[in-house]
This record gives sequence, C-alpha cells and structure tokens, in this order.
Amino acid sequence: MDSVRLSQQMKFIAEIDKLKKVVRESWLVDATRKETDAEHSWHIMVMALLLSEYSNQANIDVFKVMKMLLIHDVVEIDAGDTFIYDKEHVKDQKDRERKAAHRIFGLLPPDQRSEFTALWEEYEALKTPEANYARAIDSMQPLLLAYLNGGCSWRIHSIIKSQVIATKKHMGNGSSSLWEYTQDLLDDAVKKGILKE
Amino acid sequence: MDSVRLSQQMKFIAEIDKLKKVVRESWLVDATRKETDAEHSWHIMVMALLLSEYSNQANIDVFKVMKMLLIHDVVEIDAGDTFIYDKEHVKDQKDRERKAAHRIFGLLPPDQRSEFTALWEEYEALKTPEANYARAIDSMQPLLLAYLNGGCSWRIHSIIKSQVIATKKHMGNGSSSLWEYTQDLLDDAVKKGILKE
Repeated sequence: MDSVRLSQQMKFIAEIDKLKKVVRESWLVDATRKETDAEHSWHIMVMALLLSEYSNQANIDVFKVMKMLLIHDVVEIDAGDTFIYDKEHVKDQKDRERKAAHRIFGLLPPDQRSEFTALWEEYEALKTPEANYARAIDSMQPLLLAYLNGGCSWRIHSIIKSQVIATKKHMGNGSSSLWEYTQDLLDDAVKKGILKE
Repeated sequence: MDSVRLSQQMKFIAEIDKLKKVVRESWLVDATRKETDAEHSWHIMVMALLLSEYSNQANIDVFKVMKMLLIHDVVEIDAGDTFIYDKEHVKDQKDRERKAAHRIFGLLPPDQRSEFTALWEEYEALKTPEANYARAIDSMQPLLLAYLNGGCSWRIHSIIKSQVIATKKHMGNGSSSLWEYTQDLLDDAVKKGILKE
C-alpha cells in the first residue's frame, strides 16, 4: 500500500465533508429547511439513475453521469452556492469555480486529480450527451422540490414563471421529455397559485 | 412517454427526500452537528469511487457498488437509523428494514422495483465482492469522521476501542488494507486521548 497516495485520498475525503455545510436555496419537500449540497448531490444521482430512459440520446453512459453528478458541486466548498436567478453572483461564477476545482481536486493523487478534473470539465462544457443529461437532472431537481413544497424559493425570491423557463429551458438539450414534464409542472404550479405567471 | 410509469418514478423521487431528515449518530468533521443519511450516502459514494483499488478483489464492478450505496439507506426513512452500538435497537433492525424496502421500493415501476430490491438484498447478504467492499466503505466513514472530529460519538456514547474493533472488523472482508489503515487510526485515536483503550 502506497501510504502517500492513501493519505492524499484521505485528505480529499476529509476536505469534501465541507459540502455538507454548503446550504442551497432549495427547500426540502416538507419545507422545514433548505437542503445542503451533499444532500442535493445524492438526490440527483438517484434521479439520474432512475430517469436515464428519458435522455435524448439512447444508451448513454449512466455510470459516467453519476460520477459527474457525484463531484460536480464539490467546487462550491470554496465558490459557494450560486443561486441561478442572482445575476450579479452568476457573473464570476465560472472563475470562482475553476479556482476551487484546481485547489480541491489538487489534493488527490495525480491520476485521480486528472480523472475528477476531466469529469468536472466535461460536465461544465455541456458538449456530450452525458453532460447534457446530467445538467437536465441537476436543473430539474430544485424545480421539483419547489413544486412539492409549495413554491418556497419562488415566493421568497419573487421568481415568476418566465424566469424559470428562461433559466431552465436548456433542460431540453438533455431530455426533451423531462423538460416537457417540467413545463407541465410549472403550468400546474401557476394554477395552484404557488408560482406567478 | 408512459405517464403512469413517470408518475411512479416521480413519487419515489419525492418520497426519498425524507432521507434528508434521517439524522445519524455521526458528527461532521467540524463537530458542529450530526450528518443526515443523504449526506452520508453521498460521502461514501465518493469514497467508494476513490478507494476501489483497495478492494480485496481486483476489478470489482464499481458502478454496482455505487448503486448499492446510493440506495442502501433509503429503508431508514421508515426504519430509522440504527446506531451500531445500540444492541437493543439492532435486534429487530433486519425486520424493520425489510418492511421498509417493500413499501418504498414498491413505489417504483415493476422493473425498477426489482432492480433496486435486488441491489439492496445483495448489499444486505454480503456474499459478493461488491457488497463486501461497499459495506467496508459504509463502515469506515463514520470511524473516519469520529477520528477527525475528536471522537464526538465515541465520547457521547462511551464507546471504547474494543467495541469499535468488534463491530467493524468485518471491514477486512471487503478491504484488508482499509481495515489495516482503520486500525492504525484507532491506535492513534487512543494515543490522542479521543478513544478509550
């Protein structure tokens, strides 16, 4: 056993415990509190596994999708969660996250640093079917939570339906059918009075 | 798109949000609070991916390991978290968890219900290299957290080293080298005065 290698791996494992401290703008289904990035990452991995049949491209590599989703938010340990409707904070998001990826994945042994960095970059670039499907799932989950919890984050931040459509329509690049389903949810949310038209 | 199928999948996805409400006896590295089952599930999946080279059997199916770890704690939504040192609560754990698996995986369409139930049963049976490795990782993570946070749960529950060894030695079935590393951590924890001999 290479003890330097294992100690690098363990240092990374200890460091990423901090993802449990990054609180998102999404509220739980029961609306009692916001969820953490670690909880979100777990939830979207279950979704990605269950819903892969709706990916636009058949036979995508679901294992790769899950690995992307597993580590894609780790950069928020340094960069913080960026609320998608916060235009000011979104401006330098890429730059903050790139620096974070360099520091945090840099804790790993070289081969795993390269592997994790490549997964993160593929996800960010949105050029492969796996990245587009992963992104669709990542984007759908907070909408689903908002729909189920009575629109907590929409109400708190005065978000209206056209803003949701504008920031989430890219979902169609990964899954037309999940985007269609999501639009039906939004229409229903308007009907229920939990989202403004 | 089969709308009955999708609505069953979405019902399951909404139901498992409750895993974010199941609080474990493990404290975060910074000792500020206990972690949730959803956070734990995410953390052990990162560990399983990073540390697979230490599995006793070479070339295990890491994707299967991750799927097992992704869903293995979902039963705790109904059955609750069972603290491994709580002998009274451990007694009927299997029975409580089996009922929970039946109800919760039963929300899914038949093919996915079978797949998730099979993954959960394989994990529980501990007869395959993947299950034994997954279990070793699942068992190692709370020890690692306790070591890093100054022994919170050991102190609160007056756990001594021989109890830890007795309940965790099965780790060696999945990974001799990680079990060896863990024993070194425990020796060091005793030296540091955060675990009683």
